[in-house]
Amino acid sequence: MSTAIARRGLMLVLSSPSGAGKTTLSRRLLETETGLTLSVSVTTRRKRPNEAEGVDYFFVTPERFEAAVQDDELLEHATVFDHRYGTPKGPVMQALAQGRDVLFDIDWQGTQQLKEGAREDLVSVFVLPPSHDELERRLKTRAQDSDEIVARRMAKAADEISHWAEYDYVIVNDDIVQAQTRITAILAAERLRRTRQVGLSDFVRGLMR
Amino acid sequence: MSTAIARRGLMLVLSSPSGAGKTTLSRRLLETETGLTLSVSVTTRRKRPNEAEGVDYFFVTPERFEAAVQDDELLEHATVFDHRYGTPKGPVMQALAQGRDVLFDIDWQGTQQLKEGAREDLVSVFVLPPSHDELERRLKTRAQDSDEIVARRMAKAADEISHWAEYDYVIVNDDIVQAQTRITAILAAERLRRTRQVGLSDFVRGLMR
Repeated sequence: MSTAIARRGLMLVLSSPSGAGKTTLSRRLLETETGLTLSVSVTTRRKRPNEAEGVDYFFVTPERFEAAVQDDELLEHATVFDHRYGTPKGPVMQALAQGRDVLFDIDWQGTQQLKEGAREDLVSVFVLPPSHDELERRLKTRAQDSDEIVARRMAKAADEISHWAEYDYVIVNDDIVQAQTRITAILAAERLRRTRQVGLSDFVRGLMR
Repeated sequence: MSTAIARRGLMLVLSSPSGAGKTTLSRRLLETETGLTLSVSVTTRRKRPNEAEGVDYFFVTPERFEAAVQDDELLEHATVFDHRYGTPKGPVMQALAQGRDVLFDIDWQGTQQLKEGAREDLVSVFVLPPSHDELERRLKTRAQDSDEIVARRMAKAADEISHWAEYDYVIVNDDIVQAQTRITAILAAERLRRTRQVGLSDFVRGLMR
């Protein structure tokens, strides 16, 4: 038995340096949290063999990407390693209005831009690795990467970490199950925020009759 | 295995109309949540037979209460039904500094005053009854109360409910176990807020070395 009160969805942003376990966390959350869908980004970078169009990314030409920027079809966009990445606006706005939550796997640049347009809907979580050594170890275990790529990743990780203080919540991923439990609690709590429960006024009116 | 990061405690305020189950919820939370202690209020009203000094309230004379107000020993105080109620400041400040959380079972007047002095530490939750009929039924089942007292309680309940929109979170108590689970999630999430994890700067410095 549960009283259903209409609510507005939220935008759950997960950011972290590469190697902090964010991708695994995102996948687990999407598997267990009903009503949570992933925002699929659009990008100009080339599809990797293990990626699928419309699942991992929408892969587009630089020209198509620029047109989307000009037509205000993106919530945020950024350039990373000479490639452009962006978040399509339409599907997100529709989900929020229907009370569904949207997960964003984006970096600090994207988060800052999302904040500008949708501060009230945003819940931002920064995921930290448990230690410097563990971060280094995780970045080096991607065998297909060259030393140069690893070095660039390490520099980018340090840059990303330096933005931790711009997030609402910070969790340390020293145990994937515990980290998931923590994000689940954040999601459960944020869904109970008064400002998201748009049906409360009607409900209270019924109580006071 | 869990990385311990020093944090500042929080003040969890539960408010609700009488008969919404707040007292039961408070008791259950105190039993299950480690590190959560109840803020014991001071009052000028007379002790009831089932109450204990220093557990339910600190019972004092009007003169002692007034002295505490004058000496700024109270975080908030209010008058309800000709009796004065207040929250001693010292124990709360000590708990927060030690990373312990404090539960407040207070009304909207007390919550407003707490907000003025400690907005950053405050997490406020309003508990609503599931329906008008259920609220009425719960208020009437206290056999020892006169009709006049019940009528006053009903008026006070309506007054209290009218302040729901001043709270951070709102939950409907249609199932005590679910309501407790929800408050536990709010507590878990709020403990992960960046601003409460005062040890994060040091931790990140270690990551970036």
